[in-house]
Amino acid sequence: MHTADLLVVKIGGSLFSDKRLDRHLDPAAVRRYARIAAALHRAAPGRVVLVSGGGAYGHGAVRGLDPSEPFAALALTGANAELRWAWTVALREAGVAAFPVQFAAAAVLGPEGDARLSGEAVARLLAAGVLPVLSGDCLPDRSGRLHVVGSDLVPGALAALAPGATRIVMLTDVDGVMDGETVIPRLTPDGADAGLRALWEAPRWDTTGGMAGKLTAALEHSRKGAECVILHGARIGADPTFLLAPFEEWPRGVPRTVVAAQPPVSKTAG
Amino acid sequence: MHTADLLVVKIGGSLFSDKRLDRHLDPAAVRRYARIAAALHRAAPGRVVLVSGGGAYGHGAVRGLDPSEPFAALALTGANAELRWAWTVALREAGVAAFPVQFAAAAVLGPEGDARLSGEAVARLLAAGVLPVLSGDCLPDRSGRLHVVGSDLVPGALAALAPGATRIVMLTDVDGVMDGETVIPRLTPDGADAGLRALWEAPRWDTTGGMAGKLTAALEHSRKGAECVILHGARIGADPTFLLAPFEEWPRGVPRTVVAAQPPVSKTAG
Repeated sequence: MHTADLLVVKIGGSLFSDKRLDRHLDPAAVRRYARIAAALHRAAPGRVVLVSGGGAYGHGAVRGLDPSEPFAALALTGANAELRWAWTVALREAGVAAFPVQFAAAAVLGPEGDARLSGEAVARLLAAGVLPVLSGDCLPDRSGRLHVVGSDLVPGALAALAPGATRIVMLTDVDGVMDGETVIPRLTPDGADAGLRALWEAPRWDTTGGMAGKLTAALEHSRKGAECVILHGARIGADPTFLLAPFEEWPRGVPRTVVAAQPPVSKTAG
Repeated sequence: MHTADLLVVKIGGSLFSDKRLDRHLDPAAVRRYARIAAALHRAAPGRVVLVSGGGAYGHGAVRGLDPSEPFAALALTGANAELRWAWTVALREAGVAAFPVQFAAAAVLGPEGDARLSGEAVARLLAAGVLPVLSGDCLPDRSGRLHVVGSDLVPGALAALAPGATRIVMLTDVDGVMDGETVIPRLTPDGADAGLRALWEAPRWDTTGGMAGKLTAALEHSRKGAECVILHGARIGADPTFLLAPFEEWPRGVPRTVVAAQPPVSKTAG
């Protein structure tokens, strides 16, 4: 039983790459997550998209950008093309039809600066039973300045392919959004959760570094109707297909933070 | 004075790459043609697109494809991403804002198997004064089989950006379509030219290898209203901006074959 029409699996760069090293990839980790994505694709062909975090590629390209140089972010589109290709090769080796997609060629910036899909290329790949492989990219505004759209923001644009029926799984190196030692099971974007705003303004949980951007992105995606799940990549065992299932069917002992508006895409355990 | 709203410059692989070698690029040739494209972009910002031939990259990727393997052409999208990046770097060094665009992410196959642009990404780049860099690619059909769309066919899809007002310059290593020792100055797609059909069926000119595909592509583009010019890349001197001008303003001694329907985009010397 599947909860969503579209599953976007975003693999955090920390899971497969050491940002301190130039263009570093951990081949064993790439193979592991490629096998996970391949298993999901086989279980739901044409309904799974992979979004790669930047890792050493993306972060290396955007580190120390000169804000006075409108084209400074260009390096990101070059570096992330290599990264998408590495995933594509690993997914092919895992036996699935995967195809890299340059986000900047398939999306444009909206008037608010948010990226939205433009054109049918990604939808066509899915309809043909192909697994699209995306990443962050840089997109031009009307003046020609390039704006970085990080990999955490790409799933929100993809959610337009299945409005109100998209689950975004964000795999990272922590168990979710933490309140001290505890994983917060559920957050909603409307601030209705008791104390959410207060917590947000005086964070007791880890909003440093990657998680702050991830949570901001997840809240934004959930406002558009997507259901986001933040969890640790290492918690996925031999069979990852529970990621497609309603939460009440998930195996025990998989901590996660669900970020979704009410009503969510599926019944949730939270 | 400009003839067309959009100038697509397609640089033949033979001009910058030795197909016999693996992923070979001639850096001096890439620099030379990048400077030519940069000069055209500066003369008509937002109205010039570069399309790279495949050279050793594209041809290496599609050589000896197994037709029983529907995803065999995948290597092309990986190889040509590297090629677009090499052009982008050279164009940046030539001082212009160039941005690589994956054709398969910005286009889809139509019902007849012909590629058409889908989405606004390329139009946005042009409107922002950026020089898009494209190449051939492989695109999925409805069954998921990947079809090669060669670099000679990409300009036809781009012509939809300026219907009836696109000039496609195809730079290659011959002076045009040859009838024996003579360059045929003008061809039209409607078969009205005396003897064209007979010539085509029993070719006296060189239709071997690259030129056959180029001419077929040019005839197809001209049927859609584009004006195509096939000429030798080496004939372009210090100032390439004549490529933007009506033919009667071109310098003497630049042989070319114009392939265009009547009436053409511009008055022609042909």
